[in-house]
Amino acid sequence: MALSLYDVSIPVFTRGLGQLGHILEKGLAHAQATGIDPSQLVNARLAPDMFTLAGQVQSASDAAKFGVARIAGLTAPSFPDDETTYAQLQARVAKTLDYLGTVDRASFDGAEAREVTMKVRGNELKFSAQSYLLHFALPNFFFHVTTAYDLLRHNGAPLGKMDFLGRS
Amino acid sequence: MALSLYDVSIPVFTRGLGQLGHILEKGLAHAQATGIDPSQLVNARLAPDMFTLAGQVQSASDAAKFGVARIAGLTAPSFPDDETTYAQLQARVAKTLDYLGTVDRASFDGAEAREVTMKVRGNELKFSAQSYLLHFALPNFFFHVTTAYDLLRHNGAPLGKMDFLGRS
Repeated sequence: MALSLYDVSIPVFTRGLGQLGHILEKGLAHAQATGIDPSQLVNARLAPDMFTLAGQVQSASDAAKFGVARIAGLTAPSFPDDETTYAQLQARVAKTLDYLGTVDRASFDGAEAREVTMKVRGNELKFSAQSYLLHFALPNFFFHVTTAYDLLRHNGAPLGKMDFLGRS
Repeated sequence: MALSLYDVSIPVFTRGLGQLGHILEKGLAHAQATGIDPSQLVNARLAPDMFTLAGQVQSASDAAKFGVARIAGLTAPSFPDDETTYAQLQARVAKTLDYLGTVDRASFDGAEAREVTMKVRGNELKFSAQSYLLHFALPNFFFHVTTAYDLLRHNGAPLGKMDFLGRS
């Protein structure tokens, strides 16, 4: 059975966001157990010019919702990137999952023929929908989920690889 | 046009490994420009119980070669994980790319019907080939490429997102 762009996007983003929520939860439990102020984690970075944990979660959310919307020819909901607390980050993950839940297989009809154009740092990039998903949206999504994990690990959260991958 | 498991694996791993080689190269240039001993980077970690940069590169290589081999029903070459220098890490990336180059589209005939069984920390996991690729091999691969990037960024290497994603 061949795969559709739906198969390679919605279930993958959905699972990844679920794991991101789980990772955030374990990070919060770690803060509470060790007396770290959770807002210190929300604002943690791995390098001075990298995004904070909040930025990583916002970017993972954007990669998923714009990824899906661009391929399916929809308009993604706009989220203002104003999360400053741990609870707000979890809400951001939840509302991104809610959005993905509204996009069904039929929304992807004809998506294979779609062209995706986007501006990245002033350059216009053109992709086929397939190439956009495989070489931009998915790697970018996993980049931000992984960096959220790495940030929390670097700050002592007791996470393991299965917290990232999820159980089958 | 529907996608095959070939489309969602070989080109994605190939591009990701190419970017990993590029990221390593920029990390080495950074070490040389700032007087950091490259072996310090090879052994750097983001947390005491996380893999070193060497471990991240070995794991990205394994995720790609085992990922492809398990789906295509092939035996992946065995690499002994004995890299201790920057040049050896680059060679590891190159020989993983060489292996991927030997696996053609025809090797994936019938892969959709294959079941993948693997042991992870004592538990036996069973997947369809599709589910293994989308929910285990690909996320795991991007996890290790991203963590290599994050490690080098944390150690001051001047990397940007396009070094990870690659140019279209």
